[in-house]
Amino acid sequence: MARTYKVAVVVGSLRKESINRKAALALAGMAPDTLDLEIVEIGDLPLYDEDAEAAGPPQAWERFRREIAAADAVLFVTPEYNRSIPGALKNAVDVASRPYGSGAWSGKPAAVMSISAGAMGGFGANHQLRQALVFLDMPVLQQPEAYVGGGFTLFDEQGEIAAEGTRAFFQTFIDAFANWIERTAAPESGG
Amino acid sequence: MARTYKVAVVVGSLRKESINRKAALALAGMAPDTLDLEIVEIGDLPLYDEDAEAAGPPQAWERFRREIAAADAVLFVTPEYNRSIPGALKNAVDVASRPYGSGAWSGKPAAVMSISAGAMGGFGANHQLRQALVFLDMPVLQQPEAYVGGGFTLFDEQGEIAAEGTRAFFQTFIDAFANWIERTAAPESGG
Repeated sequence: MARTYKVAVVVGSLRKESINRKAALALAGMAPDTLDLEIVEIGDLPLYDEDAEAAGPPQAWERFRREIAAADAVLFVTPEYNRSIPGALKNAVDVASRPYGSGAWSGKPAAVMSISAGAMGGFGANHQLRQALVFLDMPVLQQPEAYVGGGFTLFDEQGEIAAEGTRAFFQTFIDAFANWIERTAAPESGG
Repeated sequence: MARTYKVAVVVGSLRKESINRKAALALAGMAPDTLDLEIVEIGDLPLYDEDAEAAGPPQAWERFRREIAAADAVLFVTPEYNRSIPGALKNAVDVASRPYGSGAWSGKPAAVMSISAGAMGGFGANHQLRQALVFLDMPVLQQPEAYVGGGFTLFDEQGEIAAEGTRAFFQTFIDAFANWIERTAAPESGG
């Protein structure tokens, strides 16, 4: 039986009707059977603070760290704020990178899709995140790069991806990620 | 009478005994009389969320936006997390950049000092922040660049800057910032 990989999906926008969240769900729906994608929430994570760590970490941090640790791979879908990574997303990255020496991200295959309203597709946010993923030793899917512009016209009134070309790109992206995970994920732990 | 410039100091670490906070206070103590530096707190800012904005922004956001708006210039002193900007600091940048069209940062002269335990001095965090400051149209002090390594030996047991060379560099940096502010700050509003 083919292995199924658990993929934690981290969405960089906290807005309920976020286009990024919709895109994440669309990708989850198109993913091959070998992937099991689930959104892991970041909106309740207190700002990282070493003093709070020392005093006994907040429950939300522990919950998030557990969920990332339990995943085989991570998909980031993020908007761009001020040409750079959203603070909420970077905070989530920081929270699960600690405590020092036992971070939850380490070694997990990752992919990044950035989405913006304008034409540039969140390049600035995408690559600021990639910079941190280098340090976290996460092998990141390089191609296809996913800078998705025109966010507000991405979905039609039925909530479906509006353009056939976009749908095809999403499919190529998630298939490539599935392939990347098979090549780079840690071996299954015995069970 | 020479004009005095209000400088909001934003510290990227939330830790009470943060080296970055100590460095910020040291810079405040060394600054020429033309500058009035005051730390503006970021640890209580809820994660930026457009839904919360629409529902009526949290008080901490309004307090922070007011304090930034009231300043003539901004000094950032920050550690580096995972080779990149701390989430808490980027969240603060995001919070005061909104609501869209009336951000508090716009046009204010800025300077960035990054401090790390290792040798690299937080270059990654420093430049990720600078990337956002471009979009926010903040003229940033270019020289001297301030990548301060060896953070844990920066201060002696009396809480003073340990090395004479470091003290001299801090002085050069804050003097250059004072000069930069005089050249680039908005004209004083009438009163």
